[in-house]
Amino acid sequence: MDEFALIETLVRGLPGRPEVIVPAGDDCAVLRPAGDDRDWLFKTDAVVEGVHFTPDAPPEKVGHKALGRCLSDLAAMGGQPFAAVITLGLPASFQPDHVQRVYAGLSDLARRHQVAVVGGETTRSPGGMFLSVALWGWVPRGRAVLRSGARPGDAIFVTGELGGSAEGKHLDFEPRVAEAWWLVNHFDVHAMIDLSDGLASDLRHVLRASGVGAELLKRAIPISRAARRAALRSSAAKPPLVAALTDGEDFELLFTVAARDAVPLLDAWKKAFPGLRLSCIGKILAEPTLVLRDRQGVQPLTLQGYRHFAETPSDPET
Amino acid sequence: MDEFALIETLVRGLPGRPEVIVPAGDDCAVLRPAGDDRDWLFKTDAVVEGVHFTPDAPPEKVGHKALGRCLSDLAAMGGQPFAAVITLGLPASFQPDHVQRVYAGLSDLARRHQVAVVGGETTRSPGGMFLSVALWGWVPRGRAVLRSGARPGDAIFVTGELGGSAEGKHLDFEPRVAEAWWLVNHFDVHAMIDLSDGLASDLRHVLRASGVGAELLKRAIPISRAARRAALRSSAAKPPLVAALTDGEDFELLFTVAARDAVPLLDAWKKAFPGLRLSCIGKILAEPTLVLRDRQGVQPLTLQGYRHFAETPSDPET
Repeated sequence: MDEFALIETLVRGLPGRPEVIVPAGDDCAVLRPAGDDRDWLFKTDAVVEGVHFTPDAPPEKVGHKALGRCLSDLAAMGGQPFAAVITLGLPASFQPDHVQRVYAGLSDLARRHQVAVVGGETTRSPGGMFLSVALWGWVPRGRAVLRSGARPGDAIFVTGELGGSAEGKHLDFEPRVAEAWWLVNHFDVHAMIDLSDGLASDLRHVLRASGVGAELLKRAIPISRAARRAALRSSAAKPPLVAALTDGEDFELLFTVAARDAVPLLDAWKKAFPGLRLSCIGKILAEPTLVLRDRQGVQPLTLQGYRHFAETPSDPET
Repeated sequence: MDEFALIETLVRGLPGRPEVIVPAGDDCAVLRPAGDDRDWLFKTDAVVEGVHFTPDAPPEKVGHKALGRCLSDLAAMGGQPFAAVITLGLPASFQPDHVQRVYAGLSDLARRHQVAVVGGETTRSPGGMFLSVALWGWVPRGRAVLRSGARPGDAIFVTGELGGSAEGKHLDFEPRVAEAWWLVNHFDVHAMIDLSDGLASDLRHVLRASGVGAELLKRAIPISRAARRAALRSSAAKPPLVAALTDGEDFELLFTVAARDAVPLLDAWKKAFPGLRLSCIGKILAEPTLVLRDRQGVQPLTLQGYRHFAETPSDPET
């Protein structure tokens, strides 16, 4: 067990209450207070200078990213946002203008998604800026989409294009809240997750939670232009397919539906979201394995996505 | 306007929703979703290594303090806790045992106060450990106690003893959730705040929000033994009264009730909480001024409590 897995175990042993339907471990927690006709979603996340953004990143984009990450997690539950609170850690030498710009970027995104921002604590931070966001949202009672619902035979979909997010998208992605809401209101979505650690890792979260496996179709993986450009620019860069499978911070949705829904979904999606690609990238298997199919046949997929505390990046493959 | 005041102004301009009853600016935000018989409280706060704790602080107490600060804010609204989410920032060299101990301290306090801890994100933090907590709680509909309700003639009370928290209490205080709940269920509490920045500053928050002033009685200010000990130990330390007025992180409650309730409250309190001192320290005035009365008469109180971004401590007085 690595250190990160150990922490996950610790977090799962946290105190509960009878109202907790889904504890820590999915994209959001789900709570059902007595006398309420909704299930409530609760999530926190942080961005840290030197980890999630560089000191020269535009402050508006730092604010955008901090809230956007939480909104992406909320989308992955099929939820609607409600309210957020912010903690901003600032070095002693901070510029008020910088803070104003962080809040402007965060507020713009909040307004677009009808998020009330109802708290903003500010604290000193000797080690550079950080921004922690907690988001509170809801789903109709019993309608949260979990990671654990994938079934053998399901078709696996991803929105958008993957890889190369570090080239820019990681700072100005649009969380897929509207798309997820449309999905859960038009189709029976079995399982969903947002892609934050990279397809290879995030799909494994779904497979583990659902007790299933998957076969991905190599030529169906939607590779971003940013990942292709990075590979052309430097021979040290990941091959584009590896980038699409392992780069973090795509903030796209991965979800599964019954195979019979796959074609109707693709047709309806094209009308609803003509500007956003939707790809069927494979299918769920009963056996707990993860394989990649290409013209030569099927091989195990051992690639890993982003490791939060890894000292070295994962080995490239293919 | 100092930098901190500027940030406060920025935070007050954040996006809202019709369900927001009290936005950022009180101890907690208050929200009233449609179809709900409760008002919900929402709050976030963080502790940062080198600011709120030293690197050698026992990790259990760091976890305790992080949640305790939010619980203290919740108590100041007369609320009951419900659920919390945590973001833990860790240096690359962290020890899993250290994290386990942080969560143990936090979980102990959570269990005592029936807080479900439903999310624990972990992220790298190049600048040292930080721990951000968001807390979600409730009050019966329309019953949140705000800072803005103090009325001329009200008696001003504080729980416990003040000053010298840095000697140890700041890491193991017990948030006054039960006491506040008892208070709002037995008396008509007009205004309440928790003492985090120091009596002189926090009382000013209440006075400004309520549009009133106050007269404090010098000999009624409850001075902690820790503040007296510190003053005896070093002539460079603050005089004990100054410490009680200006030291931060007491995490006691300050509240006001009508003058006619003062004596019944003191009597009932002694029976309900025999181990915790309650002091009537002064009265609310109609004029927006803050004065200190002693045997020589009345003089303006110009002392300030903890300033989050001040380069130098405030000048000692008296």
